[in-house]
Formats: sequence, C-alpha cells, structure tokens
Amino acid sequence: MIVGNLSPPAPLTRDAFAAFGDVVEFDGAAISVINAGYAERARDLATVDLGRSDGKPSVSIFKAKARQTPMTVTLMERHPLGSQLFFPLSGRGWLVIVCADPADPKSYAVFRATRKQGVNYRPGVWHHPLIALEDGATFLIVDRTGPGGNCDEVAVGGFHLAF
Amino acid sequence: MIVGNLSPPAPLTRDAFAAFGDVVEFDGAAISVINAGYAERARDLATVDLGRSDGKPSVSIFKAKARQTPMTVTLMERHPLGSQLFFPLSGRGWLVIVCADPADPKSYAVFRATRKQGVNYRPGVWHHPLIALEDGATFLIVDRTGPGGNCDEVAVGGFHLAF
Repeated sequence: MIVGNLSPPAPLTRDAFAAFGDVVEFDGAAISVINAGYAERARDLATVDLGRSDGKPSVSIFKAKARQTPMTVTLMERHPLGSQLFFPLSGRGWLVIVCADPADPKSYAVFRATRKQGVNYRPGVWHHPLIALEDGATFLIVDRTGPGGNCDEVAVGGFHLAF
Repeated sequence: MIVGNLSPPAPLTRDAFAAFGDVVEFDGAAISVINAGYAERARDLATVDLGRSDGKPSVSIFKAKARQTPMTVTLMERHPLGSQLFFPLSGRGWLVIVCADPADPKSYAVFRATRKQGVNYRPGVWHHPLIALEDGATFLIVDRTGPGGNCDEVAVGGFHLAF
C-alpha cells in the first residue's frame, strides 16, 4: 500500500551526502602523482569503520537485477557495527536511498549516482538495499564481518518512487 | 640495462596466484541470493589484513597511464604492514607482476588480469607498481593507512617483458 511519495533522485554530491557517509569518487578529491608518473592517486576517500565488536574487513562482489520505475520502497536496513561501501564495477549509474527515520518519508533522500561514484554508509545509517538500473550490474562492497548482529531491517511505507 | 627476461603474461587464476594473495572475482566464488532476489552475493573474496601497528583501512582511486610493450621492469615494492587490493573500474584488463626474490627473474610470475578481476596482495608480497593498459584506466584500492613505514622499494634488473 502506498502511504507516501519520495522525491525523485537528485545528483549525488559529497555535500548532499555528508550526513550519511562518504561519496567515493576521483573527481574533486585531492590528487598526488605516484609510480614515477604512471598514476594519480586520490586517497582516503572513505572512513571505513569496521573494527567494532571484533569486526574485520570483508570484500564482496554483488551482481544485481535491475529495479524498475516506479518502485515502492517497503524496507530499509542499517548495519550498526560497521560502515558499508558500494562501488559500481559496470552499468550506467545506480540509485541510493537513505533516511533519518524510516517511518517518515520527509526524512528520505534519494540520489542518482554515476558509474564513477561509490558511497560508504556510516555505521547505523538507514539505507535501501542495492538499487541497480541494469540486469547483471556488478558492485564491489567493503563492509564488516565478525561476531554480533549487524543488520537491522524495518518494513516501511510503502513509499512511491519514480526515477 | 637488460639482464634477464620475464615470461609473457599468463591468465590470472586463483590457483596460480595463491602464493601471493587473493584473486577477487565473482566468477568461481560461492554465491548466495540476497535482497529478495535482487542481488547475488559473492562474499569474503579477500583476506584484508590491515591492522598491524595500529593500521586502518584506506580506500583510494588510482587513475593510470598506460604502460607500453615491451617494458623493462626496474623496480619492485612490498608493503610489510598490510595487504593491498586493486580492482579495475574501467579498461580492458591489466597486468600483475609478483615475485619471491626481486633479484631472481626465475622467481617472477606475470599475469594478465581481466576487467572483472582484482587482486589482493598479502602483506610483504613483492609486486610491481600498477600496470594499466589504457590511459585513464581507474582502479579502486583498499590498503592500510597508519603509523610506521609500509613501503619497501628495490631497484631490480632490468628485466625485459613483452605483452
């Protein structure tokens, strides 16, 4: 059942996303030249926070099915013990939905990320599961593995989103 | 000065690379279905080892200049305090050179990685700086930041490599 509407996606920028975590992208970062001129490096692009309760870094690849517009947001999740980074490895961009209060559609922010933009959710930030726009799109994930429950899910809305 | 030759690149496989670290790729990994069917997940693809001497994870993006064939290998490096993961974000593949003894060309292994293959060097593994095959190719890097010297470089060869 639709009980509210979300705003259409806005461009993903570091400033707009600052309350939720890091935008991981080369453009706009401080650059240093390394490897005898064979590479430019943009470093420390994300605050990767994984060590709580004996956590360790984990690297995954997700292969996604495309979401279709319009979609209804019915679930949000958060990882209280660690940050979670997503970076697209293929495709033409993807969507990011975050919120302060899953029950309040006015607290939601929806972003369209480009092919060259990843995000790193801070621990505890409510976000929607991965939203790919092409079937078979792949993403690299850096998050936490370790003891303790690290995924809260909550049923919401539904909230209508067109993109 | 050329003092030896390296074998031409071989395909990168988990088995062939096992002595040096992890091959990070979806294909061939154990898969679980998540996100209500909207994603397949291949997890724990790399042993990310960053915590020595108060190290923390660091995420970087490198933008590379293409290397040309033939090239002469004149330097190898290693990071004693942490693993280092490279994953291609663009391009048509890249090269990986590792060795057991930088002075001994017979101890070298050269791999051609595809666009869908990353590697994670174990701490202390000798490797060549990033070898991209297209100008502007980008890579996501997960390695260690923290106190202490974490980069040994050694001049070698030169060793001739055609690819």
